[in-house]
Amino acid sequence: MKFSIQATDSQSKARAGEITTDHGLIQTPIFMPVGTAGSVKAVHQRELSDDVQAQIILGNTYHLFLRPGLDVLHKAGGLHQFNSWGHPILTDSGGYQVYSLSGTRKIKEAGVTFKSHIDGSTHVFTPENVMDIQRTIGADIIMAFDECTPYPCEFSYARASMDMTHRWLKRCCERFDTTEGLYGYTQTLFPIVQGSVFPELRKQSAEKIASFEREGNAIGGLSVGEPAEMMYEMTEMVCGILPEDKPRYLMGVGTPANILETIALGIDMFDCVMPTRNARNGMLFTTQGIINIKNEKWKNDFSPIDETLGGYVSTTYTKAYLRHLVVSKEYLAAQIASVHNLTFYLWLVKQAREKILEGTFYAWKNSMVEQVMRRL
Amino acid sequence: MKFSIQATDSQSKARAGEITTDHGLIQTPIFMPVGTAGSVKAVHQRELSDDVQAQIILGNTYHLFLRPGLDVLHKAGGLHQFNSWGHPILTDSGGYQVYSLSGTRKIKEAGVTFKSHIDGSTHVFTPENVMDIQRTIGADIIMAFDECTPYPCEFSYARASMDMTHRWLKRCCERFDTTEGLYGYTQTLFPIVQGSVFPELRKQSAEKIASFEREGNAIGGLSVGEPAEMMYEMTEMVCGILPEDKPRYLMGVGTPANILETIALGIDMFDCVMPTRNARNGMLFTTQGIINIKNEKWKNDFSPIDETLGGYVSTTYTKAYLRHLVVSKEYLAAQIASVHNLTFYLWLVKQAREKILEGTFYAWKNSMVEQVMRRL
Repeated sequence: MKFSIQATDSQSKARAGEITTDHGLIQTPIFMPVGTAGSVKAVHQRELSDDVQAQIILGNTYHLFLRPGLDVLHKAGGLHQFNSWGHPILTDSGGYQVYSLSGTRKIKEAGVTFKSHIDGSTHVFTPENVMDIQRTIGADIIMAFDECTPYPCEFSYARASMDMTHRWLKRCCERFDTTEGLYGYTQTLFPIVQGSVFPELRKQSAEKIASFEREGNAIGGLSVGEPAEMMYEMTEMVCGILPEDKPRYLMGVGTPANILETIALGIDMFDCVMPTRNARNGMLFTTQGIINIKNEKWKNDFSPIDETLGGYVSTTYTKAYLRHLVVSKEYLAAQIASVHNLTFYLWLVKQAREKILEGTFYAWKNSMVEQVMRRL
Repeated sequence: MKFSIQATDSQSKARAGEITTDHGLIQTPIFMPVGTAGSVKAVHQRELSDDVQAQIILGNTYHLFLRPGLDVLHKAGGLHQFNSWGHPILTDSGGYQVYSLSGTRKIKEAGVTFKSHIDGSTHVFTPENVMDIQRTIGADIIMAFDECTPYPCEFSYARASMDMTHRWLKRCCERFDTTEGLYGYTQTLFPIVQGSVFPELRKQSAEKIASFEREGNAIGGLSVGEPAEMMYEMTEMVCGILPEDKPRYLMGVGTPANILETIALGIDMFDCVMPTRNARNGMLFTTQGIINIKNEKWKNDFSPIDETLGGYVSTTYTKAYLRHLVVSKEYLAAQIASVHNLTFYLWLVKQAREKILEGTFYAWKNSMVEQVMRRL
C-alpha cells in the first residue's frame, strides 16, 4: 500500500491524498460504505461503483466470520471474489461487534469469548486468530484487534483497556508480519488509537500506536455517544501525534458535519452506517439539507430527490414517490434512499477533496456544515 | 391501441404480435411484471427496462387507490409520471384485491363495499367509479370491474356472478366511452371472461365478452387453485371464441410451464406475482430449472446464478453469494432474485416469440416445459 499527499489546506490540517492498493486507487478524504455481511444493504455492487462511486467498502469481520463463515470465504477465494466487488475492501477487527452485539462476552488478556447473536454458539477472538480470520476474508486493509471502550467510561478502566489494546497490537503485528495473504495480493494492517475521552490517555495511545510505524493508523472509541466537541478535541490531539505521511482513519464517523470538521483536523478515511441505516428509516441527506421523507409536507412534492447531487436515483425519482414507497414499506424505498444517501456522502468527500486541491476548503467547509445539516 | 400479428404457429394456436400504445410498443407474447403499489418490489425502474427488458408493467388499482390515493396520482400527472416508468402500464380493476385482501366486503348489483386492509376505512367500488379511478391512475390498458369467483365455486353462484360481471361490463363501457383520458394519451378498456371452470359458462361468457368488440380481451377467474389441466381446458375453449385479431390476456398466470402451454393455446399477455414473490422466498427460475437457493447444496457453488440467461445480476453474482444473502436476510437477496426471475420470465416469452416467428415453437415449447420446470 502506498500513500501520497497531493495538497494540504493552509487554513486547516485537511489534506488531499491517494492510497494505492492492489485492488486500485483510493482518493482521500474518502468515505467507505459499510457492507456488514458482504453487502452494502439494499445496494447492488454495480450501483456502488457506478452511481455511488464508492472507491472502497467495509466488511465486518464479526458478521462474516459467523456467516457465511471462513470455509465458504476461503473456497470462494476471499471476499472480493465472493461478493463480486473488485475494488478495495477494509475489514474491521470484529472487536466492536463483539462488545455491542454479543449478549455475553468475557474479555481476558488472552482474548474475548463471546456468543453469536445468531445462534448463541460460543467463539473466541484473539489478536492472533483475528489476523488469521482477516487473512482469510482477504481485505486490502485489515484492523488490529482492540477493545472499544463505551462512553462514558471510568478513567481506570479506559487506561487498563488501552494498555491491553497496546499489548494486543504487538501480538497482532507479530502474527500479521509472520503470515502472508492467501490470494496473491498485499494486505496491510492498521493499528487503532484508544483512550476514551481522556487527553492524557489519547496522547499516550497515539504515541504508542505511531511507534509501531504501520502503513496507516486509525482512531477508535469515538462517536460512541460523547459530545461532538469532545470527539473533535480528541481527534485534533491524536492527529497532531500520528505521522503526517500516513493515512488516518476515524472509525465509525459520522454525520456530514462530523466528517467535514474532522477532515479539517487531518482525517483521511471514514466509515459509518448512518447513510444506509438512516436511509432505511426515511432520513435523507441532501445537498440542501436533511429531509425526513415521511413528513406530510413531501406528499405532493414532485421535484426530484436532489437535482444538484445528480445521478439516476436522485434525479429520476421524486420526493412524493419516495415518500409513498416509504409509507407503503416497499423495498424500493430503502434501495432509493440508500443509493441516494451514499451518493451524497461520496459527493461530500469528493467536494472536500476538490476544495483542498483548489485551496478553498476552509471557507467552503464552514458554509457547507450549515447547509447540509439544516432540516428541510 | 393497435394490434397486429406477425406470425402464427402451424402446430398450435400460438402467435407473435405487436401492440402499439401511446407509451410504446409491446411485442407479444409478453409477460407483465406486477408493480402493485407503483413499484415492482425490490426492482429499480432502470433495472426493469434495461436488465429485465420489461415492455409493460402492471399496477393494482386497489392498492394505488388506497395509497398514495387519487389526489396524489392526479397531481403527479398519472402513474407514469409518479413512478417514472415511461413505458406502457396496465391496471387491473381492483376487483380481485377487494375479494382477496379486504376482510369484509359486500357484493351487490350496484357495486362492492369493502374495508381497506391498511386502516379499515370503508370504500365503494362500482363499475363506474372504477373506470374513473383508472382514468386518474392513467394506465394505457385498463380492466373492466368484475367479480373473480373462487375455486371451487358452485355452478349457481358462478352463473349469477358471471351474469353480474356482464351487466357490470356494460356499465363500465358506458362510463369509459363517455369519458376521456386525463393526460393527453389514449387508454383502452379490456373486458374479462369469467365462468369459473364450467365449460358452458365459459362459452357463454366468451361469446358475450366478444360481442362488446373491445380492443383486447382478458380471461379472469383462472389460476385460483384449480388443476392446471382445467385451466388449459377453459383457456383453450375461450381462445376459440375470442376474436383472433385482438390480444388475449390470461390474468394472474403463472408458472413458466403455464405460460408456455397457454401461449400454445393463443394467449398473448400474462401477469403474475410468482417471479417476484418466489424470488423473495429464495426460489429461482433459471434456464436450467428451478433452484431453492436456501438449500445447503448451493453453499459452496461459486458458479453464476444463470450464465445462459446472461445479464448483470445473473452472471455477476454467484449461487453461493445469493444463498448467503438469503440466509442473512439481506435486502440484496430480494433484489438479485427478483431481477433474475423477471429477466428469466421476459427471456422465456421472448424466446417463445422468436420460435413462433421461426416456425419452431411447438417442439421447443414441449422440451422447454420439461427443462425449466425440473428441480435442480
